[in-house]
Amino acid sequence: MSEKTNQDLERLRDQIDAVDQQLISLLRQRLDLVAQVGAVKHQAGLPIYAPQREASMLAKRRGEAKELGIAPQLVEDILRRLMRESYINEKDVGFKQINPTPRPVVIVGGRGQLGGLFNQMLTLSGYRVELLDQQDWDRAEEIVSEAQLVIVSVPIAVTEEVIKRLPKLPDDCILADLTSIKQKPLQAMLDTHSGPVVGLHPMFGPDVGSLAKQLVVVCNGRDADNYQWLLEQIKIWGARIVDAQAKQHDDAMQLVQAMRHFSTFVYGYNLYKENANLDTLLQFSSPIYRLELAMVGRLFAQDAKLYADIIFAQEHSHDAIADYLKRYQEALTLLNSGDRQGFIDTFDEVAQWFGDFAGQFQRESRNMLKSANDSRQ
Amino acid sequence: MSEKTNQDLERLRDQIDAVDQQLISLLRQRLDLVAQVGAVKHQAGLPIYAPQREASMLAKRRGEAKELGIAPQLVEDILRRLMRESYINEKDVGFKQINPTPRPVVIVGGRGQLGGLFNQMLTLSGYRVELLDQQDWDRAEEIVSEAQLVIVSVPIAVTEEVIKRLPKLPDDCILADLTSIKQKPLQAMLDTHSGPVVGLHPMFGPDVGSLAKQLVVVCNGRDADNYQWLLEQIKIWGARIVDAQAKQHDDAMQLVQAMRHFSTFVYGYNLYKENANLDTLLQFSSPIYRLELAMVGRLFAQDAKLYADIIFAQEHSHDAIADYLKRYQEALTLLNSGDRQGFIDTFDEVAQWFGDFAGQFQRESRNMLKSANDSRQ
Repeated sequence: MSEKTNQDLERLRDQIDAVDQQLISLLRQRLDLVAQVGAVKHQAGLPIYAPQREASMLAKRRGEAKELGIAPQLVEDILRRLMRESYINEKDVGFKQINPTPRPVVIVGGRGQLGGLFNQMLTLSGYRVELLDQQDWDRAEEIVSEAQLVIVSVPIAVTEEVIKRLPKLPDDCILADLTSIKQKPLQAMLDTHSGPVVGLHPMFGPDVGSLAKQLVVVCNGRDADNYQWLLEQIKIWGARIVDAQAKQHDDAMQLVQAMRHFSTFVYGYNLYKENANLDTLLQFSSPIYRLELAMVGRLFAQDAKLYADIIFAQEHSHDAIADYLKRYQEALTLLNSGDRQGFIDTFDEVAQWFGDFAGQFQRESRNMLKSANDSRQ
Repeated sequence: MSEKTNQDLERLRDQIDAVDQQLISLLRQRLDLVAQVGAVKHQAGLPIYAPQREASMLAKRRGEAKELGIAPQLVEDILRRLMRESYINEKDVGFKQINPTPRPVVIVGGRGQLGGLFNQMLTLSGYRVELLDQQDWDRAEEIVSEAQLVIVSVPIAVTEEVIKRLPKLPDDCILADLTSIKQKPLQAMLDTHSGPVVGLHPMFGPDVGSLAKQLVVVCNGRDADNYQWLLEQIKIWGARIVDAQAKQHDDAMQLVQAMRHFSTFVYGYNLYKENANLDTLLQFSSPIYRLELAMVGRLFAQDAKLYADIIFAQEHSHDAIADYLKRYQEALTLLNSGDRQGFIDTFDEVAQWFGDFAGQFQRESRNMLKSANDSRQ
């Protein structure tokens, strides 16, 4: 590199440094302002996530970016990332308490990860939370005696059993669970308790920094009017509520959860059996393969029991998993007989069935893959 | 909402608007400065992607963020997104031409997507590019007569055939291909041409906005010294070069490509056969399921022939695909016999085999999933 080139680059980099320092200081200002918005909302008991406000703000910014010749998507991506940070910071302010009463919320299994998250969110909203774990069981009756709400958050395999073992709850107490299947736990809760009952499935892991934009599926058990405040509270945390029938929910979960986990498990198992060299695979990985490998590998960083529970809990999922095997065999037959045209025809049939979703998924994943490439070292 | 709350929110939102306008104007300044860096680099013939400079700049910014009480990851994510934009904009400046000669580069199949991308990159680097497509075949001899480089970019299924049909090239002309398998095309090129030969596998799709940080696998055929300038040129575009043996490359591709595509295909086929309701599935989808559905759906937005080619091209991939079926059956046996402990033991075995990669993949995908959640409407 020539001296001149070197000097030019140094000068420009100094200028970039200066711009970046202003940028960081603006980020600080924006986070502070949004925190103030959060405090005002907290006072007024407004939900932290306001989809319409967010959409109109983004539309305005995209327009402003365009005027300056900046790609609107760049500004949108940066603002969305900033909003995520603000949502995480909301926790520092706490949340409005929708149902202020001194009666405690009891979390059965509150020392688990998901129970811990609900403990945190409820505490930040001013509720008195008590935990009921295995070691506390001899005091169970006393712990639930004043409860306004009991949330069961234990492994699927023992959910029904734990619900059945619960001592008698106050008549007006809400009984809820957080299990990822809903029919059986809901029935068990209705059998055990005569008061308000609701099944919840938080569609996120315990490691989300914020509940903003996350989904909670709600299956009504009994006395919906009496547990409305709990749903309002969850909305205050930023989550979206989706009502569902327990059976409809469980059927969908077979496909998106049990079966997907199972085939991901088999994929990892197969890599192990083939004794694949992960270093080499990663070396040859485009962003999409790397992402797919990551989705497989992440499963094995987690608790085997959790996945065993999810996969073994639903009898019907075995059928779905066996169906998949049948289809795999059919497709392999096409391959082994060299029936390229048959493969293409089937492919096109499936593509037609996906319809507009295929294009939508491609657009969505394209942005995702670009973002995956950003982080490459 | 009270009048007071409303006023407070309005005032804060006006302030946020003002900060955002400054932010957008700073983004414009930064993009301009980086474009100037690009111009200086272009003059000096330096590659646009400088990993070390990038890493040290990010480390500095993370430190500055920390001092202001901002999460370092926030600043890093925003800067990485900005850098992506700058890389895309690099194209406006053009690239240094490593091998300035008036002799043309010929792209066989240059009207295809990937051929088109190489056409664009080479043209932006000052090369004269000529296309040789099916309809030009009667002029093929004339088109290649002065070529310094011939790049074959046609569907896998016809790559070997097209290579064999090529007219005689100038002795010192480089013959290269862009196919995603390497052994057979490389052998065909060596058989056809006595000059420099190199097999390239660009590990990215034609829709990447920039080659920065992307990967190109290089398999040597013959006379490596004589095609070095081509590799240097690719590095100028920002891509990383990975040397590989053709067999080693093809073996890895069986696992990460043929097999992965095949099982993704079967997954989509199965959803179709189960007549899953995609609307309902999406409604119940956490970020991770949505991402996985998107990875399946995106396949079917693409050309069936492309995937048929990739999957049918490699005989050995059939073995890998059949192996996967065997493992699926083994795992299904565990499930059908209710052998929860057997499942857990196998899971733990695989987890141990993944070793540190599992945790690494979990961290990587966590950030990805958070970013997927950012875009939720």
